[in-house]
Amino acid sequence: MDPVPDSTYASPRPDPRGQRSETYLSIRGATRALAAPLSVEDCAIQSMPDASPVKWHLAHTTWFFETFVLVPHQPGYRAFAPEYRVLFNSYYNSVGDRYPRPERGLLSRPGLEEVFAYRRHVDEALLGLLAADRFPAEAGALIELGLHHEQQHQELILTDAKHLLSRNPLKPAYQKQWPLTEIRAREPRWIAFEKGLREVGHSGQEFCFDNETPRHRVWLDAFRIASHPVTHGDFIDFIEDGGYRRPELWLSAGWDAVRAGGWEAPLYWERREDGWQVFTLHGEVPVDRNTPVCHVSFFEAEAFARWASARLPTEAEWEVAARDASRAGNFLESGALHPLALRGAPAEGRLAQAFGDVWEWTRSDYGPYPGYRPAAGAVGEYNGKFMCGQYVLRGGSCVTPAAHVRATYRNFFPPHARWQFSGLRLAREA
Amino acid sequence: MDPVPDSTYASPRPDPRGQRSETYLSIRGATRALAAPLSVEDCAIQSMPDASPVKWHLAHTTWFFETFVLVPHQPGYRAFAPEYRVLFNSYYNSVGDRYPRPERGLLSRPGLEEVFAYRRHVDEALLGLLAADRFPAEAGALIELGLHHEQQHQELILTDAKHLLSRNPLKPAYQKQWPLTEIRAREPRWIAFEKGLREVGHSGQEFCFDNETPRHRVWLDAFRIASHPVTHGDFIDFIEDGGYRRPELWLSAGWDAVRAGGWEAPLYWERREDGWQVFTLHGEVPVDRNTPVCHVSFFEAEAFARWASARLPTEAEWEVAARDASRAGNFLESGALHPLALRGAPAEGRLAQAFGDVWEWTRSDYGPYPGYRPAAGAVGEYNGKFMCGQYVLRGGSCVTPAAHVRATYRNFFPPHARWQFSGLRLAREA
Amino acid sequence: MDPVPDSTYASPRPDPRGQRSETYLSIRGATRALAAPLSVEDCAIQSMPDASPVKWHLAHTTWFFETFVLVPHQPGYRAFAPEYRVLFNSYYNSVGDRYPRPERGLLSRPGLEEVFAYRRHVDEALLGLLAADRFPAEAGALIELGLHHEQQHQELILTDAKHLLSRNPLKPAYQKQWPLTEIRAREPRWIAFEKGLREVGHSGQEFCFDNETPRHRVWLDAFRIASHPVTHGDFIDFIEDGGYRRPELWLSAGWDAVRAGGWEAPLYWERREDGWQVFTLHGEVPVDRNTPVCHVSFFEAEAFARWASARLPTEAEWEVAARDASRAGNFLESGALHPLALRGAPAEGRLAQAFGDVWEWTRSDYGPYPGYRPAAGAVGEYNGKFMCGQYVLRGGSCVTPAAHVRATYRNFFPPHARWQFSGLRLAREA
Amino acid sequence: MDPVPDSTYASPRPDPRGQRSETYLSIRGATRALAAPLSVEDCAIQSMPDASPVKWHLAHTTWFFETFVLVPHQPGYRAFAPEYRVLFNSYYNSVGDRYPRPERGLLSRPGLEEVFAYRRHVDEALLGLLAADRFPAEAGALIELGLHHEQQHQELILTDAKHLLSRNPLKPAYQKQWPLTEIRAREPRWIAFEKGLREVGHSGQEFCFDNETPRHRVWLDAFRIASHPVTHGDFIDFIEDGGYRRPELWLSAGWDAVRAGGWEAPLYWERREDGWQVFTLHGEVPVDRNTPVCHVSFFEAEAFARWASARLPTEAEWEVAARDASRAGNFLESGALHPLALRGAPAEGRLAQAFGDVWEWTRSDYGPYPGYRPAAGAVGEYNGKFMCGQYVLRGGSCVTPAAHVRATYRNFFPPHARWQFSGLRLAREA
Repeated sequence: MDPVPDSTYASPRPDPRGQRSETYLSIRGATRALAAPLSVEDCAIQSMPDASPVKWHLAHTTWFFETFVLVPHQPGYRAFAPEYRVLFNSYYNSVGDRYPRPERGLLSRPGLEEVFAYRRHVDEALLGLLAADRFPAEAGALIELGLHHEQQHQELILTDAKHLLSRNPLKPAYQKQWPLTEIRAREPRWIAFEKGLREVGHSGQEFCFDNETPRHRVWLDAFRIASHPVTHGDFIDFIEDGGYRRPELWLSAGWDAVRAGGWEAPLYWERREDGWQVFTLHGEVPVDRNTPVCHVSFFEAEAFARWASARLPTEAEWEVAARDASRAGNFLESGALHPLALRGAPAEGRLAQAFGDVWEWTRSDYGPYPGYRPAAGAVGEYNGKFMCGQYVLRGGSCVTPAAHVRATYRNFFPPHARWQFSGLRLAREA
Repeated sequence: MDPVPDSTYASPRPDPRGQRSETYLSIRGATRALAAPLSVEDCAIQSMPDASPVKWHLAHTTWFFETFVLVPHQPGYRAFAPEYRVLFNSYYNSVGDRYPRPERGLLSRPGLEEVFAYRRHVDEALLGLLAADRFPAEAGALIELGLHHEQQHQELILTDAKHLLSRNPLKPAYQKQWPLTEIRAREPRWIAFEKGLREVGHSGQEFCFDNETPRHRVWLDAFRIASHPVTHGDFIDFIEDGGYRRPELWLSAGWDAVRAGGWEAPLYWERREDGWQVFTLHGEVPVDRNTPVCHVSFFEAEAFARWASARLPTEAEWEVAARDASRAGNFLESGALHPLALRGAPAEGRLAQAFGDVWEWTRSDYGPYPGYRPAAGAVGEYNGKFMCGQYVLRGGSCVTPAAHVRATYRNFFPPHARWQFSGLRLAREA
Repeated sequence: MDPVPDSTYASPRPDPRGQRSETYLSIRGATRALAAPLSVEDCAIQSMPDASPVKWHLAHTTWFFETFVLVPHQPGYRAFAPEYRVLFNSYYNSVGDRYPRPERGLLSRPGLEEVFAYRRHVDEALLGLLAADRFPAEAGALIELGLHHEQQHQELILTDAKHLLSRNPLKPAYQKQWPLTEIRAREPRWIAFEKGLREVGHSGQEFCFDNETPRHRVWLDAFRIASHPVTHGDFIDFIEDGGYRRPELWLSAGWDAVRAGGWEAPLYWERREDGWQVFTLHGEVPVDRNTPVCHVSFFEAEAFARWASARLPTEAEWEVAARDASRAGNFLESGALHPLALRGAPAEGRLAQAFGDVWEWTRSDYGPYPGYRPAAGAVGEYNGKFMCGQYVLRGGSCVTPAAHVRATYRNFFPPHARWQFSGLRLAREA
Repeated sequence: MDPVPDSTYASPRPDPRGQRSETYLSIRGATRALAAPLSVEDCAIQSMPDASPVKWHLAHTTWFFETFVLVPHQPGYRAFAPEYRVLFNSYYNSVGDRYPRPERGLLSRPGLEEVFAYRRHVDEALLGLLAADRFPAEAGALIELGLHHEQQHQELILTDAKHLLSRNPLKPAYQKQWPLTEIRAREPRWIAFEKGLREVGHSGQEFCFDNETPRHRVWLDAFRIASHPVTHGDFIDFIEDGGYRRPELWLSAGWDAVRAGGWEAPLYWERREDGWQVFTLHGEVPVDRNTPVCHVSFFEAEAFARWASARLPTEAEWEVAARDASRAGNFLESGALHPLALRGAPAEGRLAQAFGDVWEWTRSDYGPYPGYRPAAGAVGEYNGKFMCGQYVLRGGSCVTPAAHVRATYRNFFPPHARWQFSGLRLAREA
């Protein structure tokens, strides 16, 4: 697939000051554009405790700039509404009280229009700050962080809206057009990597989150990794071979999840008379065997790997293997909003579809890198305090902004989570 | 208080055909008017499983006319949207599947505008039916039932919207103006009734629900009943005397509810530095000692009565006592939307404020009258199947349409329910 | 069936002082005898929060005498163990703290032998009190209450032990012998009662619980009541006619219970290849069509009645109808521990099996009689505080001591409870 | 402390055949001895779903030998009771059905005496097999596994019995004598380790569990580790510094656990007027500042480390550091059944109390080593399927048999578990 370059999306790294304003406007505008196909009600409702209303995402990302940039660094800034400090705080204990997460859907007020006004208020003040003569350096780093944060929530807006729409028996589509054409998938090959001492983690001047640091050494035994992600067709084979009925394929906690949730297929699948259908942001469509499987939990990914006599890669293996892969891929900007089949072959010995399409579960729990130190202050709560009970995903998905992801990027979710655009790629011992 | 005659509210009993259309339009219009102060989001959200979104009330009352009147009795009627048959079925098993009650708040679609279109579609068809030459008699009775049903949901719209708004830390008001002036409450007196064989239940040609029939005899020992409902001031005395901390005042299940819910006062009360405040449809205001207490559960009512060395009346006692009381009162039409202090004295030996202001809990569980038979067909599910585990309330409240209530009217809720406009009146042995 | 007179069981009404001691010893001994077939472990375990360990029943009944009789009325009495005051308090808030009910099964200590020692300690002291020269009158009434209380717990010991044993895949029997012979049931007839003003409730000098008072007038319309309880065979017909799959037969809360609990038959039934089996205190046996159905909830009783075009009697109807029935019946003393088929015909116009075999659900919620006043002091918590959300059962069961029950006796349980020996008898309008 | 050599405990490695029988008898006898101070009721009750009744442990360890050794390898073996195959299966799906874990406490039958008979029956058969001429090699490995399994359950018997006894307000002691004398703790020092490529995991012929293999290379940056475990005194300092009230010290999931569980101190602590008391297997005693802290969760260990400006070691760091530490320590055989203060100094540069006293939480989630393969057949379910959502503990505790543990041994529990004898040791970057 050819990623469509789209001027509304941009890398959040703003360098000269004018370019910074452009980047800011571009990313903030992209968020706003994602809400356009949604109704006022679509934006207000919370479909489960794990998800948030779109309106909340729109407000919380704005709160981030207000709380961490404008209040400390813009003298004389007047908060849009003092109550929002509590109302739209996600999880920052250092900022003070916060409104309970499972009740975000109870907030009919402020309404969507008022949230848009809030966004405009903050955008104006922030552009003023960017244009100011004495621009504090620390503010620059926080704006950059805020823009990456905004991009994360762009993905969550689509992910959470999809979940909400899927719960409606009317099966409404986020967007109607469906640009996909069926293409035969290539056979995956195993790509081999030698044993050795490697370095992983982020280095250099480009932006990264604190959890990608420090860069550090890790010993890897020789391993092989699949050239392509597991496809929907592969997963149908697993299902038809009794995958969801055979406890020996599952981790104990995974088997508990299968039985407690009555899982028989990935999230959003429905077995109809004429075969498997799947709910997408385009409404319900037939499952396409040639596209990467999506909306599977860590448990399902891990069980599939066992069934396939393989395993999940560790995050270090993935990072080493993906280092030379093409960054092009099916991201948010393509407008597909669903994993696509690969067009064209990847370069010899390179991973295909490592970036975009689906986040890929790894076998690594989300923990601190050796020597990890959270950032100082409230933003230190951004990543570090979640380092328990979650697993790392890599590579970005079809609803991730292209400029947001990189080889060292660590996404993380609990092992039962299925509402993210999450799939997998297999690995094996050499 | 003087009930304000208001032409937008009317008795649902339509007799000549033209008048029938007028009544229909008037009651349906009143429902629509109740939604006017609410935002699209206010109408979409469900604040707890017991409550429903306002949008759902607007659609479900319409579904009632479509399902029980138009589909069977209007030849050639085209349903607005076939999916609504399931989507807006509340609890009628005979109609087929129904959408789960606790998930009504997940339905961002259809949007509020579409629900209004649904209402217009059904209203037009129903007015056509009313104007038709051959008007089926059975349809007339069902329309009448549908209008009383609509009035019940008018009350629920306000009750449920109040609960939603109360959960918001911004404490938004449904309407801003607050017409209340403080007035000193009269001292309640005990009114005595002789023992004897009485008749209770509905008789005559006027409309009633099936649960008010058959009229039947009941023996009553002599009793006394309070001339006025218990006031907020009375309840503050109870609280200050340790009412919520003394298990000996409570039923066992009531005491469990106190501890499980952390109850320290009626619903919507907050203890502020300057005294008790209460959330109303006008926002948060100080508790007014002279007005009838509201938003108490059966458990609280029953414990208060024990504390006051009295008891709750049975529903037969209430009905006998209220038979001669004035029907005038503070109903929905007054616009107060909150219980008011009494102005003027009631006639000698008559109950004051028996109708309007607050529903009054009785000591009677909600069961079938001797010889009770539910109506035939699906509407037989209207009342009978709920005759278990609930207690009877009488008299209507400040959010009940005035024409909706009567002395034989039986409202019912579980003993822990507090979000209704529910209060109490004391009784004693002679 | 012929009730076997058994000298180990006796009426708790002790009149002359010597006889009082005999009665005391006889009833206390009967309790002890019930534990004999049980192992130490059987007596220690709590199978669900509604049930209590047998060891707890043995201790709590003893605690009752210690707390309400010995401590206040026996000067110089030394408590067996001061901690027991909290440990074995069931629900008396006036006595002070109590150990949480759902955790009664966590108390491995005191062991069963120590509980027996506790019983002996209290028995000795109480016999001393009974033999004393200056015997306080109030103590006499409390001892009488304590003996009736003990008999209630005799029934609960068997009921709760049955539940525990039933949860064990080994299906152990409480006692092995099974004295039942199959007998063909008589056809039930309808027995008619005229309308009129009746008196119900207890009068006279004999012992009764406070909830049976005061005797009061009640108007009854004419009604008919079945001569016999509903049998297991009747209930199989109900099941085979889809009784558990037809929502129109059920109260709304009942239908919720059916689905939540996956109910397909009364408690303890298992569908085996060769037909319905039922777990009894003799182990698992085939369901006998001719015996009264047992272990049904109020919901099941009410739905069965609707299916049979009948209804449950009110408790006043039951009491009026049973007034002249024979008190003989299949009680605890018969040793059958299971409902039996009727032998011999009842007298013309009299109810058969009104007493013993199974408790009969009525349509009446458990509330206060007009003018009801709980007893003064802690024993006032015995009955009154449970008057909410429960339904009245009448007549006693095959595990009730024969001397314990009477026509005015009101038993009560929540509408979903099934582990009691509960059945039903039908009624109809005249 | 001087570990008491005790002939009733032995290493499970049996080599010559006669020695094998001796080892078998010694380890099985030690299990039996642990139950001796417990009453029949103590052995029957399950205090929470995570724990099992002691009776169940006694039966399940026996089931292990019957199912995996006798049934497949002893021709003509007659099962003691066929129902036990399901009843005492812990989690082996390959063996077939299993009785639900949270209901183990419902099994009053078989009684304790019958479980002892079951043990004797299996022991006899197994000794017969060991004495047989043609002894199958595979059986030897399974017996060895079964003996290590038995030792794990020895620890669990004490751990679970302690939890049960602690829930009893009577605070009964497992054993009365209390051999501890107060000793002043040494100051911990930091011991430094150089960076480098290390090998971890088990090698050689000695027994190990499959999860300790394969031995593999791992890169470690330079680190420091504390010479001693964190003490009760250290933990009191943490508490007094607001440790349980400062969210910034906790992982997000840990902070949730603190609030949900109302944690204010480690499990079993009670704040009395005269200071902290702790429930032990000797009853309630004052907290001794000089002994290693015990019964803390991973969350508490991790928060403590952050408060102390340190971190938990990884399991590889721990293993490398403990490799040269003394294996002597306070194990089950000492009879102390509680962590003790150190007597005497450890050798220079060696860890003190690395083995025994308390299991030490590491920062490593419990996952598969590179190249890990579970054992074939049902015993492959022993370890591998639990590799998700748990954290590794190292070193054994005061209730672990001394011969059971080794430097490569990986214990694992969920991060909120506190009822194990779990403590911690600090680490830091170099």
